[in-house]
Amino acid sequence: MSITTVGLDADDTLWHNETLFRLTHERFCALMADVADPATLETRLAEVEKRNLRLYGYGVKGFTLSMIETAMELTGGEAPSSVIREILAAGREMLSEPVEPLPGVDQALAALSERYRLVLITKGDLLHQEQKLAASGLGDLFAAVEIVSEKDASTYARVFARHGTGVAEAVMCGNSVRSDILPALEAGAWAAHVPYPLTWVHEMAEAPQGHPRFAELASIRDLPAWIDAVG
Amino acid sequence: MSITTVGLDADDTLWHNETLFRLTHERFCALMADVADPATLETRLAEVEKRNLRLYGYGVKGFTLSMIETAMELTGGEAPSSVIREILAAGREMLSEPVEPLPGVDQALAALSERYRLVLITKGDLLHQEQKLAASGLGDLFAAVEIVSEKDASTYARVFARHGTGVAEAVMCGNSVRSDILPALEAGAWAAHVPYPLTWVHEMAEAPQGHPRFAELASIRDLPAWIDAVG
Repeated sequence: MSITTVGLDADDTLWHNETLFRLTHERFCALMADVADPATLETRLAEVEKRNLRLYGYGVKGFTLSMIETAMELTGGEAPSSVIREILAAGREMLSEPVEPLPGVDQALAALSERYRLVLITKGDLLHQEQKLAASGLGDLFAAVEIVSEKDASTYARVFARHGTGVAEAVMCGNSVRSDILPALEAGAWAAHVPYPLTWVHEMAEAPQGHPRFAELASIRDLPAWIDAVG
Repeated sequence: MSITTVGLDADDTLWHNETLFRLTHERFCALMADVADPATLETRLAEVEKRNLRLYGYGVKGFTLSMIETAMELTGGEAPSSVIREILAAGREMLSEPVEPLPGVDQALAALSERYRLVLITKGDLLHQEQKLAASGLGDLFAAVEIVSEKDASTYARVFARHGTGVAEAVMCGNSVRSDILPALEAGAWAAHVPYPLTWVHEMAEAPQGHPRFAELASIRDLPAWIDAVG
């Protein structure tokens, strides 16, 4: 067995993302403070997002539309226009936010890219993810970029067959147990979980216990050494 | 010279799309009839869309956000909530609209897929385009699907290198001279223009005259014979 290919999640693995969503949630709660308390607002927004996920998928544009819809529902269709304008502005600001790699990412990716083929595997808005990768300055380290609509076992099997030497010789690394770890293990790949302090409620899942192809890492800095050890 | 690979655009080449956008424009003008006349509404909406294109890219979600923003701007931020709710509903309806192949598409693609590798090359929302392809029943005819954020010469060079035998042995077919024809010819591919009765204002461009690798076809039904003749 030798590892040839390393798949990396993007949001909250290479750069902050959930923090930005959290800040926008807080802004939304502040805007709607006269209408409902934060707990009610968060519950309703989560419901609307979940209902729209099938149509909107992942990303800032769908999130912006869901905030507007939640504001409309909670005000009986009478949300003040200032709220709608502020939500539109918040969405645009999220899309144009500067992108900075998380601590240790630059060095870990530089080390990995010398020995393995790196593939970025991420969900979200196609254009926005491409823009973030370009802005991060990390683009040249990747042999391939796959922006996908769903991360399931068949996604990982397909991507590692296309861009590597198959799942058995691939490692997937990301912050989401549900999207990055469990389906990659199911497909037959190795998987390394690097937790991010915040996890989106729809992405919560328990990390596997004692799986032979799995590791929980405190930082992406530990990834090269772990792959060298198993591969 | 022998053609091995055929790239096909999706929206308005394989199935209706602009018609659906046109109907939603009409709905928007009706909703906003008290605020401005249709010509003013269309001009402002086109301006907002153009301004947002860099951030939102192509697709229904960005279009929905631009309609809301236009409504806000034209009402001095006082758009009635019923208008916002109707715009949100219109966007969701566009995303869940049934997909039916245009006349002749089924037969043309079946014939082409026996002799050439077919690659779908399209802009737009990743999830929505995948859903439309699945709903169209045409998915199995394609060897590969590339949903891209921009269609320029380098896009075609990359896609036909990855999924075919290079641009020189590839044909691109689509309804947009600007997105499907000119950049494919620039990259060195062959190109067949199959016009759609409606063209989005941002996609307008003149068809090339007398280019040796170009054909204007009245229908996609004529594509297999043309490719057989040149290839």
